Amino acid sequence: MATTTQKMNAFYAQSGGVTAVINASACGVIETARRHKDRIGRVYAGRNGIIGALTEDLIDTGKESASAIAALRSTPSGAFGSCRFKLKSLEANRREYERLIEVFKAHGIGYFFYNGGGDSADTCFKVSQLSKAMGYPIQAIHVPKTVDNDLPITDCCPGFGSVAKYVAVSALEASFDVRSMARTSTKVFVLEVMGRHAGWIAAAGGLIEDQGIPVVILFPEIVFDEAKFIARVDALVREHGYCTVVVSEGAHHADGSFLAEQGTKDAFGHAQLGGAAPVVANMVKQALGHKFHWAVADYLQRAARHIASATDVKQAYELGVRAVELALKGHNAVMPTIDRLSDAPYRYRIGMAPLANVANVEKFMPRDFITKDGFGITDKCKRYLRPLIRGEDYPKYKDGLPLYTTLKNVAVAKKLAAFEL
Amino acid sequence: MATTTQKMNAFYAQSGGVTAVINASACGVIETARRHKDRIGRVYAGRNGIIGALTEDLIDTGKESASAIAALRSTPSGAFGSCRFKLKSLEANRREYERLIEVFKAHGIGYFFYNGGGDSADTCFKVSQLSKAMGYPIQAIHVPKTVDNDLPITDCCPGFGSVAKYVAVSALEASFDVRSMARTSTKVFVLEVMGRHAGWIAAAGGLIEDQGIPVVILFPEIVFDEAKFIARVDALVREHGYCTVVVSEGAHHADGSFLAEQGTKDAFGHAQLGGAAPVVANMVKQALGHKFHWAVADYLQRAARHIASATDVKQAYELGVRAVELALKGHNAVMPTIDRLSDAPYRYRIGMAPLANVANVEKFMPRDFITKDGFGITDKCKRYLRPLIRGEDYPKYKDGLPLYTTLKNVAVAKKLAAFEL
Repeated sequence: MATTTQKMNAFYAQSGGVTAVINASACGVIETARRHKDRIGRVYAGRNGIIGALTEDLIDTGKESASAIAALRSTPSGAFGSCRFKLKSLEANRREYERLIEVFKAHGIGYFFYNGGGDSADTCFKVSQLSKAMGYPIQAIHVPKTVDNDLPITDCCPGFGSVAKYVAVSALEASFDVRSMARTSTKVFVLEVMGRHAGWIAAAGGLIEDQGIPVVILFPEIVFDEAKFIARVDALVREHGYCTVVVSEGAHHADGSFLAEQGTKDAFGHAQLGGAAPVVANMVKQALGHKFHWAVADYLQRAARHIASATDVKQAYELGVRAVELALKGHNAVMPTIDRLSDAPYRYRIGMAPLANVANVEKFMPRDFITKDGFGITDKCKRYLRPLIRGEDYPKYKDGLPLYTTLKNVAVAKKLAAFEL
Repeated sequence: MATTTQKMNAFYAQSGGVTAVINASACGVIETARRHKDRIGRVYAGRNGIIGALTEDLIDTGKESASAIAALRSTPSGAFGSCRFKLKSLEANRREYERLIEVFKAHGIGYFFYNGGGDSADTCFKVSQLSKAMGYPIQAIHVPKTVDNDLPITDCCPGFGSVAKYVAVSALEASFDVRSMARTSTKVFVLEVMGRHAGWIAAAGGLIEDQGIPVVILFPEIVFDEAKFIARVDALVREHGYCTVVVSEGAHHADGSFLAEQGTKDAFGHAQLGGAAPVVANMVKQALGHKFHWAVADYLQRAARHIASATDVKQAYELGVRAVELALKGHNAVMPTIDRLSDAPYRYRIGMAPLANVANVEKFMPRDFITKDGFGITDKCKRYLRPLIRGEDYPKYKDGLPLYTTLKNVAVAKKLAAFEL
């Protein structure tokens, strides 16, 4: 591998749905780059992700104080803005990739740090390929991030541990509530969580079984069977007096239709409004007559920096740090990974994976992480999950609210003609 | 007032919807009673609230260790079970009130501590009246509790401060998330919160304006006006690029129908499934075309001991302590209250209100706490709310989950014939 000896600028961007800890990775990238001023010049960030690169809307992170950058470690969301914007294949839209290279060239950018999930790993890989083809050297390093925990090779993805902790803590607290009320009121509580394709987030709800809570989990990996589900809820309510259901937004019927799509229409004939949780709750009501409550956590779960997992925050930061170190060592088209060495005590090291093996591969829950009946998680899954939610990393508070940082995000002067998206 | 000189047992029960801090009040009651063993014998708790008294299903809290009782301070929900069971008027159901007195008599109970909201204040008051009429002396003390914050006289109600903190923190975090995504994706986030009649909980969402977040609040106190609402959202999105809506479950149209009741029917003709949040979010989508996300916090908000307000926990505990002290001083048919002395610095003292003035009175948001346009909170409201969410009082954690206590709840031997509810 060729080591860049010349001093180049760096570009960092956040991609896709943001998380409670993606800014901790940004913090790791920027702080580490600042420690290597002999090799890395300015660190530019894309305003609203890769769109910032395409439109040459760059942010000069050098205008932010050391304390502002440090505060990113405990600030949820994407401090520079993110975007949902998938670059097409090189063949279908070579123009966009070439524009990226042009912008990088115009601003002396030799390092490309892209912080995202599977799609952005793919983009990152293509940028690296094209830079070779165009003869302008870019070292493209992908920093993993996704609450869905569905990237391959890495043992877990930054963002997931904190959502998992949020889901487990919330399900535990709501279960205590239902248990208190079950004698005369609510007997079934349904919590809807994210995860359109993979059930990792829903799985975290299973951790509260260790505290004696009866839980039914509905995974996207298991085709929904209403009769079996109702029988399971019935059995648990008979035994415990109540039960909690954690349903993934991706839970679906045999024909692939989501539970959330029940053909519900409002008075004006508009399509259904709700999620999977009210559908599931009403199923229970119809079949068993139990009073229910339901919650849809939505963004609250992925933004919940106030209850972030300390393990997750630490790993998000470390992967940001390592991304820069890999670049400085001359690596290209790679992603730093979490390689688990043992469950208990939890030990891991930071490894590295070639992007060619990461792009466009989704990692689902292994079947042996889900109980035979399809409604719970196995001990093996619990051993996997427990260390990921371990530890609290509280933000500072003022007047009862977390002190989250909003950066100045000063724009870099443009050098190129405008670009139509 | 007559002071009970004879040593009597005490009865404590939790009523209605539970909160993150009702057990802190239980902790205050039980620890204080234990410090006065010369005057108070055993402390019995009602299993599932007042139903436990009616059915003589008493729990001997004396079987719990000091550390288990201390742990109640940081455990959400109702440790002895609660119930939704409103005793009718004395005239309509004298039988139930007489049964309560019989059970109290059979178990040497001279102190009745009832931990609940408006309905239970009423029950507590009636028990005290009947005990006089029946010639069996009971000192009935009401310990205030309601996330709705709608009890009169007291400046605030234990349980509210923690929900308010949860709502403000969650709305802040989700708003940071939306702000990150707004360029290409979600522009409007809707959070539905509790409060069927009073908008106190929704009001807490307004506190995040101090951090520059554009928020629209829909209160039950203000009749919903769709055109004005859409115009407000439109203006905020044009100015900030995004906005957050906090909608109370009690938000309603001019005819009194809730926003949640949109006549929505599922494919089988069953009544609507969803809450107000999806209705509001879809309204915005229809009118302005913005991509939205919505969350319904439901039980998560009132059970969220992990982010409880330290002020709230402290007050919940203190009111439990004071309830016992008032009983020992010979008071009857009263409720300890929070009397605010100043906003900043926040100072309060514990006062006392006669139950005759508390029962069946609901306290709504004063009009001058709501902005003229009806969509926000005023500075006066912010001065009121800020101290109530101040301070963090974290539970202990083990393996990433809070260490919440489940008591043994050992039953007391019955002495009476069974009673049909």
